[in-house]
Amino acid sequence: MSAWLLPDHFADVLPSEARHIEDLRRGLLDVARRYGYELVIPPLLEHLESLLTGTGEALDLQTFKLVDQLSGRTLGLRADTTPQVARIDAHLLNRAGVTRLCYCGPVVHTRVAGPHGSREPLQLGAEIYGHAGLEADLEILELALDAVRAAGLQRLGIDLGDVRVVDAVLQGCSLPAERLARLHAALAVKDVAALAELAAGLPEPVRAGLLALPELYGDEAVLAQAQRCLPGGERLRAALDDLAWLVARLRERDPDVEVTIDLADLRGYAYYTGVRFSLLAAGAGAREEVARGGRYDEVGAVFGRRRPAAGFSLDLKQMVRLAPALALRPAIRAPWRHDAALREAIARLRAAGETVVCVLPGHEHEVDEFACDRELVERDGAWIVQPLAVQPV
Amino acid sequence: MSAWLLPDHFADVLPSEARHIEDLRRGLLDVARRYGYELVIPPLLEHLESLLTGTGEALDLQTFKLVDQLSGRTLGLRADTTPQVARIDAHLLNRAGVTRLCYCGPVVHTRVAGPHGSREPLQLGAEIYGHAGLEADLEILELALDAVRAAGLQRLGIDLGDVRVVDAVLQGCSLPAERLARLHAALAVKDVAALAELAAGLPEPVRAGLLALPELYGDEAVLAQAQRCLPGGERLRAALDDLAWLVARLRERDPDVEVTIDLADLRGYAYYTGVRFSLLAAGAGAREEVARGGRYDEVGAVFGRRRPAAGFSLDLKQMVRLAPALALRPAIRAPWRHDAALREAIARLRAAGETVVCVLPGHEHEVDEFACDRELVERDGAWIVQPLAVQPV
Repeated sequence: MSAWLLPDHFADVLPSEARHIEDLRRGLLDVARRYGYELVIPPLLEHLESLLTGTGEALDLQTFKLVDQLSGRTLGLRADTTPQVARIDAHLLNRAGVTRLCYCGPVVHTRVAGPHGSREPLQLGAEIYGHAGLEADLEILELALDAVRAAGLQRLGIDLGDVRVVDAVLQGCSLPAERLARLHAALAVKDVAALAELAAGLPEPVRAGLLALPELYGDEAVLAQAQRCLPGGERLRAALDDLAWLVARLRERDPDVEVTIDLADLRGYAYYTGVRFSLLAAGAGAREEVARGGRYDEVGAVFGRRRPAAGFSLDLKQMVRLAPALALRPAIRAPWRHDAALREAIARLRAAGETVVCVLPGHEHEVDEFACDRELVERDGAWIVQPLAVQPV
Repeated sequence: MSAWLLPDHFADVLPSEARHIEDLRRGLLDVARRYGYELVIPPLLEHLESLLTGTGEALDLQTFKLVDQLSGRTLGLRADTTPQVARIDAHLLNRAGVTRLCYCGPVVHTRVAGPHGSREPLQLGAEIYGHAGLEADLEILELALDAVRAAGLQRLGIDLGDVRVVDAVLQGCSLPAERLARLHAALAVKDVAALAELAAGLPEPVRAGLLALPELYGDEAVLAQAQRCLPGGERLRAALDDLAWLVARLRERDPDVEVTIDLADLRGYAYYTGVRFSLLAAGAGAREEVARGGRYDEVGAVFGRRRPAAGFSLDLKQMVRLAPALALRPAIRAPWRHDAALREAIARLRAAGETVVCVLPGHEHEVDEFACDRELVERDGAWIVQPLAVQPV
């Protein structure tokens, strides 16, 4: 076993991609700042209970555990930042009004979803606390859209759902938690056979409603169709009205963004309590999900403060694969010499934002790793920048 | 046990400090870029052997271990980024010439040095590979100085040492590793009593030299003094000459930076092989070490490629405590209304870099968390920005 082999699904990010990720990070955090979202940095490790309360089994299985030798207690390496930010809102800031927070940092997963996934996404996200109205859902959607757009992604799409739809359909049937979880899973992947089996024996309108859900996918016509064919009464109507309001606002704002509705989609860490959404975008290849979010009013409850909450998150390492390549920022080569005027010229160029790479003695014939298109040369006692005529070989 | 209590020495970074850290991060990475240092992002977790080879026991004890359920192997949560970057230079980039790399990310320690330390420093650093000459040491020193200066730190100082001095003094005495480690530790803290005990029985010039080392602290007069009173021959002279060269260059460049020499100081992760340095700076209080670096030519050897290397690292979470407070960037309040002209005005202001906080319906009388000094108001059908006369209560 060579010392330089990494564990599966962990990878170094090398210079050109790392620079691009850093640029995306800055651009996206700036978008969040301009919306009034304040940055927080929660720790990588926490007591396991704090990381997992209220988040469901999926996150537990995704979380690396380790022992704190100071306390003897079990710590978790965060697999998701949202519960941490909810904790910060609930306890540390403890504000009465609306609080807007954003974050960017690595999360670590014990396993990956697909064969090419990473176990260390670089998660960036934003959350708004304290407002139960749809205006907060809309703000988060707009912020997520602006963030994805700032990354240069193309052919954007929004896929909307609402977990209250399935809840409304199942209203009155008290299912054991395990059957409910399997039902949610079958809906998420639109597994009609499994769904038929799990729905068997439920009251007829519920059974028919569950089986109809996987078909309720498409443009806003789906909402009227759902109103006709699903049981669920007032709770269903409230969810569908909310979706209709959001779709109208989004179309007004961004006519070029495709908005679709998927009433069966329940993906995520099981903490959504209302509207949920996926943002889709295409790079070179097919369109894929690049951000996910929604409303999750219950997450703060375990920290002693039930606050309305909505937010989104995305993985910068995934996003960078889809984003258009960065323009190269060319640099300036400079010789190494013990010469005050040279040092001053270099310092001045760097202060102006230029990259100046000093060629150390004995390395004059190496190829620059930074693409240098100019060089600093001495002419009549002055140091001037001139185009690099021939690339060194 | 409340779910919101964090493990000892882990802390959330709240908005104003997080914003400041983000600004420092950007500023310092930009300084490194202008010197031609390319960003890399190594993973948080690696096979334990890769993280620890060639780094000594101290780092092992600082490293959290966990089990990879995919492979059954033991992983380490990185406690230091330098060995990872050496691995990247040695294997992934595999360049023949000079390679300059920088990084910024969290590292995690099982224990802390002092009662107020953090177990999760945010480590930022830069490394240069492939050049054995002092020009590389000088470049790293200058880069570290510029970085610390970019953070706004005051009363800068450089404390220089060289591990070859102690090696030269001990030349010819083959000490057991454990005694050598205790000797290094006694020198590092200038524990003269322990030193006398550990030096007992060594040949007289060596014993006297070791006991003289803790006194060899001060300005460059120390170098001549060391030449007179230490054994070590050519190896000693080479180290002292290197230090004298660096001191002269640093004084020329930055006459306002205090340069001191400490020939007994051996702090660090035991991987230095030549010149080492501490950068000192003061904030409100006393001067303290804010960055550390030096030459460590052996770190890449375990990855199959012995390359000359020098670098430095610092902790942004420590640095932010010393840096002068950030100027507040005031924001603009805007009402929430379904109004295309308002939405357009907000989008325009945000595109210009302004922070515009929308006051969601029902929250009109809340105090803004972002310090708003202006507001967006409608006048004669147009949305204009005007000073916020009275702060909302």
